Amino acid sequence: MQVIKDHYIYKFSKENVPVAHASDGETLRFLTRDCFNCQITSEEQTMETIDFEACNPATGPVYVDGAMPGDVLAVDILDIAVAGSGVMAAVKGFGVLSERGVSRTKILEVRDGYVRFNDVVFPAVPMIGVIGTAPDEKPVISGYSFSCGGNMDSRKITKGTTVYLPVRVPGALLAMGDVHAAMGDGEVCETGVEINADILVRVRVIKDFRLNWPVTETPDEWFVNTNGVNCDTAILRGYEELLRLVSDAYGWDTTDTTMYLSLQARVEANQAVLDPNETDDEGPVFRTGVPKLAAKPRLIP
Amino acid sequence: MQVIKDHYIYKFSKENVPVAHASDGETLRFLTRDCFNCQITSEEQTMETIDFEACNPATGPVYVDGAMPGDVLAVDILDIAVAGSGVMAAVKGFGVLSERGVSRTKILEVRDGYVRFNDVVFPAVPMIGVIGTAPDEKPVISGYSFSCGGNMDSRKITKGTTVYLPVRVPGALLAMGDVHAAMGDGEVCETGVEINADILVRVRVIKDFRLNWPVTETPDEWFVNTNGVNCDTAILRGYEELLRLVSDAYGWDTTDTTMYLSLQARVEANQAVLDPNETDDEGPVFRTGVPKLAAKPRLIP
Repeated sequence: MQVIKDHYIYKFSKENVPVAHASDGETLRFLTRDCFNCQITSEEQTMETIDFEACNPATGPVYVDGAMPGDVLAVDILDIAVAGSGVMAAVKGFGVLSERGVSRTKILEVRDGYVRFNDVVFPAVPMIGVIGTAPDEKPVISGYSFSCGGNMDSRKITKGTTVYLPVRVPGALLAMGDVHAAMGDGEVCETGVEINADILVRVRVIKDFRLNWPVTETPDEWFVNTNGVNCDTAILRGYEELLRLVSDAYGWDTTDTTMYLSLQARVEANQAVLDPNETDDEGPVFRTGVPKLAAKPRLIP
Repeated sequence: MQVIKDHYIYKFSKENVPVAHASDGETLRFLTRDCFNCQITSEEQTMETIDFEACNPATGPVYVDGAMPGDVLAVDILDIAVAGSGVMAAVKGFGVLSERGVSRTKILEVRDGYVRFNDVVFPAVPMIGVIGTAPDEKPVISGYSFSCGGNMDSRKITKGTTVYLPVRVPGALLAMGDVHAAMGDGEVCETGVEINADILVRVRVIKDFRLNWPVTETPDEWFVNTNGVNCDTAILRGYEELLRLVSDAYGWDTTDTTMYLSLQARVEANQAVLDPNETDDEGPVFRTGVPKLAAKPRLIP
């Protein structure tokens, strides 16, 4: 099995040189570094001390043979193994509640599938924060999310789910990193349990299927991962994409599809922490979803 | 058992005259009418034909003995029985996708716990759309949500959950209505399966506990039901209230609590359908939640 490691990108870009080739249906391992690029090694070290340009390394990119613009790359997340401890950092000025606290770093142990925070123990649910394909337009730094993925920080992107990414350039140029052993919706202080990981995925090419945003399929639900300069925009974009996908899959007109979404759509947040004055696409990331229904057409083949 | 019926309010107001008194711990039935006040009786009738002033009737209010300003009223939702069919209506100009479709009404059958929509069948999950206590300031129409509840339209307010409502006036003045047999997050076309219902609740008074917003406790999670003129505001208000509750319950400082929320908070939407140009508190309703953890202090006694 190919192991993708030691090569990192800091921007999703069509100019990135692939570090490996994979065939349609191939299983791959990605070894990833924590979002701080392992720059924080003790609780005495706060986030102010690190080089932000070196953050959010994404391992890759991988050229998937046969993936061409207009296709979709399905990435089945088969497993995410994490290191024995991760780093969490709060820093004044980062996150929606940041002005109320102080800068602080915690090294959190992850043992037997559980995270300990002070005297509270809860299950680790490792998830991939950054995963994406290359845009066909200007590069996007790996700390941002965009229409081909990037730093979506979705709790849904975990073992047992499939991420469907639009393919905009030949080979798709898949890269991933920024695993969290645990993260809450909104990532209030802008970090989760940031941790090195060993990810097992299978890549599949779905020919000629239009996606305007990444979509995540869990055992029970579909989620559209959108973003926007504010949450309202992100949510509306999600509804619009769901309207198109559900209408196509079910053969319903716009009105019936809208009514159905009014009964069965779900909205959850990924990120809701960024500066509301941001004016580009690096706004909060939301996902909107419609439950998967037995005996109906799939939204994506 | 007292049955509260035939008396409806259209505003949550301290001026409303109670139609019944209940004691702390008493179990009550509320018979409620659908949000259209049963004005829509066929699929030929679209929402434009009805009197909106007569919509969102809330059955009550009930004076709960011993509930005083500064207390919390806990409402345990023991059961929600719904009628055999409900009404769903899309109308041009209502909801975030409304300009794309036409006005349409559907009468949807609810049988054996399932809803049929076209040829798709899914489980009914009856929930209470409007539930609240009276404000101590100006009245709030029952179609809006506010800091004592109202039209929260939360899917979480269903059988087996408890809603904690701030008490602002003597007796709390509890009223409820607007049950849906099913509703999606965001209520994209502004209606769910609107239906008459028979609700069984128990009311409990929690003395001297501060809540700035309603809180819903499910078997697994706590949700703060906030609102705002946009989703970002609603989410921030939820985080702020969670910060206060979790910090008090766990004895942590602001920074540790913020970090914990960054790992364990959740964000879900209730309403995300209203006009973004609205300038008062009738904006979208969000809930934010922190999972309930065994062996830790409860957030609310």
